[in-house]
Amino acid sequence: MNSVEIITIGDEILIGQTVDTNSAWMGLELNLLGIRVNRITSISDSRNEIISALDESLSRAGVVLITGGLGPTSDDITKETLAEYFGASLVPDSGVLADVTERLRKRNLQMNDNNRRQAMVPDNCKVLRNLTGTAPGMLFEKQDKIIVSMPGVPHEMKHIMKEHVLPMLAEKLTGTVIVHKNIMTYGVAEAMLAERLETFEKELPSDIRLAYLPGYGVIKLRLTVSGSDEKKIRSSVREQVDKLYKIIPDVIYGEDEVMLEEVIGKILNDNNLTLSTAESCTGGRIASLITSVPGSSGWFMGSVVAYDNSIKTGLLGVNPETIRLFGAVSSETAGEMAKGVRRLMGTDYAVSVTGIAGPAGGTAEKPVGTVWIAIDSERGLITERHTFGDDRLTNITRSSYGALNLLRKQIISG
Amino acid sequence: MNSVEIITIGDEILIGQTVDTNSAWMGLELNLLGIRVNRITSISDSRNEIISALDESLSRAGVVLITGGLGPTSDDITKETLAEYFGASLVPDSGVLADVTERLRKRNLQMNDNNRRQAMVPDNCKVLRNLTGTAPGMLFEKQDKIIVSMPGVPHEMKHIMKEHVLPMLAEKLTGTVIVHKNIMTYGVAEAMLAERLETFEKELPSDIRLAYLPGYGVIKLRLTVSGSDEKKIRSSVREQVDKLYKIIPDVIYGEDEVMLEEVIGKILNDNNLTLSTAESCTGGRIASLITSVPGSSGWFMGSVVAYDNSIKTGLLGVNPETIRLFGAVSSETAGEMAKGVRRLMGTDYAVSVTGIAGPAGGTAEKPVGTVWIAIDSERGLITERHTFGDDRLTNITRSSYGALNLLRKQIISG
Repeated sequence: MNSVEIITIGDEILIGQTVDTNSAWMGLELNLLGIRVNRITSISDSRNEIISALDESLSRAGVVLITGGLGPTSDDITKETLAEYFGASLVPDSGVLADVTERLRKRNLQMNDNNRRQAMVPDNCKVLRNLTGTAPGMLFEKQDKIIVSMPGVPHEMKHIMKEHVLPMLAEKLTGTVIVHKNIMTYGVAEAMLAERLETFEKELPSDIRLAYLPGYGVIKLRLTVSGSDEKKIRSSVREQVDKLYKIIPDVIYGEDEVMLEEVIGKILNDNNLTLSTAESCTGGRIASLITSVPGSSGWFMGSVVAYDNSIKTGLLGVNPETIRLFGAVSSETAGEMAKGVRRLMGTDYAVSVTGIAGPAGGTAEKPVGTVWIAIDSERGLITERHTFGDDRLTNITRSSYGALNLLRKQIISG
Repeated sequence: MNSVEIITIGDEILIGQTVDTNSAWMGLELNLLGIRVNRITSISDSRNEIISALDESLSRAGVVLITGGLGPTSDDITKETLAEYFGASLVPDSGVLADVTERLRKRNLQMNDNNRRQAMVPDNCKVLRNLTGTAPGMLFEKQDKIIVSMPGVPHEMKHIMKEHVLPMLAEKLTGTVIVHKNIMTYGVAEAMLAERLETFEKELPSDIRLAYLPGYGVIKLRLTVSGSDEKKIRSSVREQVDKLYKIIPDVIYGEDEVMLEEVIGKILNDNNLTLSTAESCTGGRIASLITSVPGSSGWFMGSVVAYDNSIKTGLLGVNPETIRLFGAVSSETAGEMAKGVRRLMGTDYAVSVTGIAGPAGGTAEKPVGTVWIAIDSERGLITERHTFGDDRLTNITRSSYGALNLLRKQIISG
């Protein structure tokens, strides 16, 4: 009975007001531990529905994880229903009461009846402490089966899962402790990356699993290791990470959840370097990504979005002859744009992009998706051509990240 | 037995690779028709799971909507399992075959065995034509109950729902036809909007429902009308829309799903006007939004992202005295930025934004979230102050949409 089911409780999911992202997160985390979710059931805030869904899930699975229906308002009846289901009385819990009191004090709020209700728990459950909200998690055991109830607020659910439920299930269901490590890559498609890592994957120790988690051109490589000796498995992960750095040094840009724009911000900041951008087809997207990072005013001077060719020539100083001879989408134009904005803003580095985002504007020689990126610095000018696809917004995103990645490589190679 | 259940089939949902957004969309659409989804069940691509979930759902509900498991690969077994469940044989459907053939022809692809398999359907189902993909929808009837199977690809599922399932269920379950109309608003918070529409809502005919669908500062007002006479309900919706235009003319910017950047593109294009932007705290986000619209090179000349004050003075020609006296975040600086970029790029309109996105940089007088927007044109200069909140990314988004909305109002008031 090692299988797990999830029950999500809340009218807001059934009427489509809320998309259930919790279940996917839980499914992914459990899967990385080697634990399979067999079924997800979404039901309304109704006593009868809760009882029948729980009966059904417990007839199939050994573990039932419940989210939602623990709010302080009267439509949330999960706690009362669970107390009834497990034959318990609701009693005040001094630990929860202390946590809630402290939370309110920090926000200068008065304790009210609703808050006091949050501190009442069924007398036969184990309280799972919630440091991110007022509703605690609750763990029940019944005939060797485990039932956990958690708040539906995603960050509260994740907190209780990470702190209490995942470690407990890892030990209980797989008898091991678990360590994750994320390696962030950019610039190689998933199939190609898998090819380069074929031998690596074959040689992975049997207790280490590798997952590819792609998104927006970034592929996150997630190593998951399980074992009984945490120190040993941590060093075993580090060994594999070191191997990855040797096999694909060109595509790894960071670890854990870091984004390219953050990595670049850190490199520029650490080395006291400044940056400017000149953007045509990306239309300001690169500047927008760079300035999404707090503190970016310390390294980013500004950008010229030269959408019209007259701005490329008039403001960035691109030679009209260059555009006439090679076209606005060319290595030459990209290069003059980067040099132009670097001169204009007096920065150490400048990045430029010019391309055909689509849907119109493509030719046989330069189809939609053709993009030139240039980086200028005192070390000289480099340019790079990409051919992305048909979709305008994807082309803009991929051009922007492509430019950030080329910039990163150029700076660290210096 | 007017209740509806949803079953989603696919391992990718249980292992968290895919978030089930389909169910929320279906729940919302059905709810707007006055039809309630009672349960959502997610199961794996397994024959036994499909059969038992279907048995259970049919024991409770009159309608079961199934998504997923209809792909061309061998792990997708929904069609075969449904044929078995309903005692049917799989037979080729000439209509589906013709649609698939035409789809492949347009893409210059050859028909293969997988495509031919897509054109096989259970001989006792009603085929629901899918013009957006190769897997058709299938409708089964069993003892007065309705079972519909649809692909899991969101735009294909939505297409089949809109074209076939929603109208059929509306008529069958509520005996009516349904008309929706979306009115797009910007610039007023939901609670405030609800206050201004209190009387409007009270006076709404009983067959018309109003929903508030907020997102990114935009609030979509959705009117849903049901009735037996389509012509009559269409004119009844139009009447209410006209009323809305009288009550909140200042906040409506468009109808249906249109975004502010598209509306502005259309206004500029229709009036042969050009635009440039000068951005500080928005860091290129406004230019990025404007250039996300296909064809924007027709009206958008470019932008200067003047993140550093030296770019504001050096490139945009803001007087250093202005910054010294009033600060970089001031009506005066915003105004000189807009004038500067308009002169530099020779455009009809220019929009500028300067503000404190956070988390650092706030003062008592100008807290984080303080933003000045300016619009310059031959009709003169206008500026507007906003005070948004604490979150950097929210401040950037809200500043950008605020600027687009002020620009829109200024252009159309001319």
